[in-house]
Amino acid sequence: MSSLPGQSRSHVRVRYAETDQMGVVYYANYLVSFEVGRTDWLRQTGSTYSAMEDKGVGLPVIEAHCAYRQPARYDDEIEIRTTGRLLSPARVAFEYEVVRPRDALIVATGSTIHAAVDRHGRPRRLPPQVKDLLA
Amino acid sequence: MSSLPGQSRSHVRVRYAETDQMGVVYYANYLVSFEVGRTDWLRQTGSTYSAMEDKGVGLPVIEAHCAYRQPARYDDEIEIRTTGRLLSPARVAFEYEVVRPRDALIVATGSTIHAAVDRHGRPRRLPPQVKDLLA
Amino acid sequence: MSSLPGQSRSHVRVRYAETDQMGVVYYANYLVSFEVGRTDWLRQTGSTYSAMEDKGVGLPVIEAHCAYRQPARYDDEIEIRTTGRLLSPARVAFEYEVVRPRDALIVATGSTIHAAVDRHGRPRRLPPQVKDLLA
Amino acid sequence: MSSLPGQSRSHVRVRYAETDQMGVVYYANYLVSFEVGRTDWLRQTGSTYSAMEDKGVGLPVIEAHCAYRQPARYDDEIEIRTTGRLLSPARVAFEYEVVRPRDALIVATGSTIHAAVDRHGRPRRLPPQVKDLLA
Repeated sequence: MSSLPGQSRSHVRVRYAETDQMGVVYYANYLVSFEVGRTDWLRQTGSTYSAMEDKGVGLPVIEAHCAYRQPARYDDEIEIRTTGRLLSPARVAFEYEVVRPRDALIVATGSTIHAAVDRHGRPRRLPPQVKDLLA
Repeated sequence: MSSLPGQSRSHVRVRYAETDQMGVVYYANYLVSFEVGRTDWLRQTGSTYSAMEDKGVGLPVIEAHCAYRQPARYDDEIEIRTTGRLLSPARVAFEYEVVRPRDALIVATGSTIHAAVDRHGRPRRLPPQVKDLLA
Repeated sequence: MSSLPGQSRSHVRVRYAETDQMGVVYYANYLVSFEVGRTDWLRQTGSTYSAMEDKGVGLPVIEAHCAYRQPARYDDEIEIRTTGRLLSPARVAFEYEVVRPRDALIVATGSTIHAAVDRHGRPRRLPPQVKDLLA
Repeated sequence: MSSLPGQSRSHVRVRYAETDQMGVVYYANYLVSFEVGRTDWLRQTGSTYSAMEDKGVGLPVIEAHCAYRQPARYDDEIEIRTTGRLLSPARVAFEYEVVRPRDALIVATGSTIHAAVDRHGRPRRLPPQVKDLLA
């Protein structure tokens, strides 16, 4: 199945470490999946978030939201579908859908908002290669 | 400093494990602080979440939100102020304020929504001792 | 490059969540890599750890050791090489080598010892399909 | 109960986040408890690890070991007893005992070895205030 334009798809397998005593993925760990998603999304720019940081540009999270639909479990293969959206010249939102492809279960949906900052934490414009990929 | 009625205050110290390479607390870890906050809030009922689970009542998170204001750092003492709000006979919302008391810095604010479920994951009413504490 | 008999190779990419303010993978997270390694090792039995647990057999860790050689960093692709060794009819040891294939860097080495237990936490013999794979 | 000379005692409560689907604390999280222990141990020097890092001295872990005795569970209050031992002018070992004071249960024991390094990661002597506290 092909992705939407500008959408990235990441695949991870749930680790035992990520479960809690309810037998499902602990709720904070979905935000880690989101990070995996946006790291792969940014890789589509031909660069990486790591290289961006080396050049002195950061994208710290200023807001995060997650809606939990159905629990993911240990050893489940899950897919994170990530899209980006321009909010302003200095802000970007990512939207995430966490699914279990085996049975097309929608596990969680969420979003994060990020501000572009320079090496000193001051607001700056988004790097052009990020902006170009945004809807 | 006294708490608001029904508000609980929890104190934790930021662990090295919770920081990331930006030198601040990694964003998903605030949701763990929220968990510490609501565990202590529930302790005000005279019971504990642990005892509640033993009796077959769970309060899984169905939604979480966090706004990141100022970064907390390694070894910072932080306070989590938690309040509860009744959403329906079977749903409760918790609201959190994460502050650094040393300089009254507001680090993060957020909320979580929980559905009461029985041992089989089916919706049920909130336990009376929880409902009685809610605004 | 082929694996040794009975050796499994797992591939993961370091997450931002796994780094700490020193800019490298936080030391406890290598034990999570080890878990990824032994989960994949057990998959070679034709079954999974998850299926084993469903049948009432657990392999809780009773001892863990890690030697840290060179730090892994955010977004590094790392490989976990896992081998198993029979210690007794009821105990197994796993040995791990965490490497960064890009430059053949040995990041960490370690081991874990596990006791086979039944559903009630009582010692039992290792499942035959696990024992058959052990050196 | 008083501590041994040079021993520090830290108190933490097990978080839901730290449990896994076995219903107990996930094994890697004991290394986080060890970190809490040695951070408090270092506070006895009259300084902090945080201040030490600011002055350009780090104590990265080069080896870690943990023996798991009895599982700690969600909401358990646990105590980490930490002692330090000089290995060489540039190396220190910490030893940890994780206990559940409620019933004097020994949960885990372990150790970590650390090398003193300067801002550039080069070996250096341990800071005198650390050395002075070591047995």
